[in-house]
Amino acid sequence: MIEMRGAAGAQLRALVLGAGAGGGFPQWNCRCRNCASFWAGEAGLAPMSQSSLAVSADGENWLLLNASPDLRQQIINASQMHPRAGKRHSPIKAVLLTNGDLDHIAGLITLREKQGFDLLATEEIHSVLRANPVFEALDPEFVSRKPIALEAPSEVLPGLTVTLFAVPGKVPLFLEGEGPVDTSAVGEFTVGVEIAAAGQRLFYIPGCAALPADLAARLSGADLLFFDGTVYHDDEMIREGVGHKTGARMGHMAMAGPGGSLAAFSGLPIGRKIFIHINNTNPVLRAGSTERAAVRAAGWEIACDGLEVALTRQDQSAQAQGR
Amino acid sequence: MIEMRGAAGAQLRALVLGAGAGGGFPQWNCRCRNCASFWAGEAGLAPMSQSSLAVSADGENWLLLNASPDLRQQIINASQMHPRAGKRHSPIKAVLLTNGDLDHIAGLITLREKQGFDLLATEEIHSVLRANPVFEALDPEFVSRKPIALEAPSEVLPGLTVTLFAVPGKVPLFLEGEGPVDTSAVGEFTVGVEIAAAGQRLFYIPGCAALPADLAARLSGADLLFFDGTVYHDDEMIREGVGHKTGARMGHMAMAGPGGSLAAFSGLPIGRKIFIHINNTNPVLRAGSTERAAVRAAGWEIACDGLEVALTRQDQSAQAQGR
Repeated sequence: MIEMRGAAGAQLRALVLGAGAGGGFPQWNCRCRNCASFWAGEAGLAPMSQSSLAVSADGENWLLLNASPDLRQQIINASQMHPRAGKRHSPIKAVLLTNGDLDHIAGLITLREKQGFDLLATEEIHSVLRANPVFEALDPEFVSRKPIALEAPSEVLPGLTVTLFAVPGKVPLFLEGEGPVDTSAVGEFTVGVEIAAAGQRLFYIPGCAALPADLAARLSGADLLFFDGTVYHDDEMIREGVGHKTGARMGHMAMAGPGGSLAAFSGLPIGRKIFIHINNTNPVLRAGSTERAAVRAAGWEIACDGLEVALTRQDQSAQAQGR
Repeated sequence: MIEMRGAAGAQLRALVLGAGAGGGFPQWNCRCRNCASFWAGEAGLAPMSQSSLAVSADGENWLLLNASPDLRQQIINASQMHPRAGKRHSPIKAVLLTNGDLDHIAGLITLREKQGFDLLATEEIHSVLRANPVFEALDPEFVSRKPIALEAPSEVLPGLTVTLFAVPGKVPLFLEGEGPVDTSAVGEFTVGVEIAAAGQRLFYIPGCAALPADLAARLSGADLLFFDGTVYHDDEMIREGVGHKTGARMGHMAMAGPGGSLAAFSGLPIGRKIFIHINNTNPVLRAGSTERAAVRAAGWEIACDGLEVALTRQDQSAQAQGR
């Protein structure tokens, strides 16, 4: 097959640095069924680091979507992220945060050491960072903190445009406070990302409490979707005896059930659908599970650390083949 | 050889979770000689995660000395740190911080998830944590923050007593501010730790700007010392072209030179001396280097991730052998 790239060799690529939810898999102090199996050395369970995706339009310069606490090891594990030139270098040219959760911001601490990049987020997420002096390790001489407004397309790297949009969610756990928490609020604290490059559209939504009609319409026709795959059953953590919260309480729609993502996305035309941000308790992590089979049967893939997806330009390659 | 344990089976053990300095080895954006060799896949250079030591008097319950950003992976890599019972468990029963540097505190974020432990530090280091809302992820219902005064022995785990003492150093980099920095100040912001258990004395001093006579006297006769091995040459980062700071400016005494640790410790009676908190630029990391040979010739060892030292009770084993 002839593959024809865009004028500047552009091709949208996505690299899963971490497929896991907060705490990763295994979780440090957990003996749920999956974790206990992992600690016991059972086969069929791959470890996952915490949620992060890298995207690029040219394979050289990368946008990091969320900075997980595991970022240092994720960079070491992925040759695409290694420094390549001079004494100080990184292919990571920009970092975009989709919320203020610890599993998405703590890795910023890894990115110290006088390396220039743009730090992109909504104004509300920037304010979470400003409230924590530890992030002052990012020297403003090198790191430019730039607010991005919702629904305003922004070319953050040459040929790569992002648009942020609000999705149902909640404020970060460590900022919840004492009172009741609105778990499907819509605002600047939890966003989804549309990434457009080389004529392709990719969506990254690692946290989402529900799929309202306007969000479904937005995602319709996308070439690639990475979506919140935290829990399979809404009450999974309770069933496993490792927590008292439902997926809904954590701001994550479950995969299964009438209000779950498998049902909600059924029939929606999307090129490729991949679950990401998968919790340690999720039974889809087990190679032979019925839940994993159900997810695959519904047309979904399950992300793993190191998964790379390179989208080809359907229209151009069709033209090239027609010559 | 007959090994006789103490009455309660007590034996002081130390496990190096991370032997590296801030940023670890390799450092994410660095191409100093060592890092460039690592990225190129050259042999003879082992990766190191960031500075942390675990100690135990019974092999079951562990005190963590510093919580590095790499803590999640360090726990996965060390079977001694795995959860062993019930649904939630950890052998880590207490965490002690020796300063407020990011490479020593960021890992606290990993220790969320409703696990009880004591968080121990000087009042000044606790105040650094309190100034950062991200650490409120440690639920006070489970995590007890306890101040420890300098020079006050405290039994932090059964049979394991720690004493904190000030060593020459400086405030954390991210709190330095604009003005000149006192790099060999003495106070609560940089401490050394004496750990006594089963009749043995271990010292852990990952950051130290100088060795004044009173500190040398304190360390004299110790069974085991883990000491600041950040740089070999004071101007090593400048020589390598990856920074403009000397070891002294960073609050770390170099190994080499007239004021270096090799000279300063010469002749001081210490059972076993191990360098820890080793920077990515340090030439001792290279298997065949003259610097590594010089360190070994001076009676020092160089820590690596996963190194475990179990001290035997000399007196008792001698008695046992004499029977």
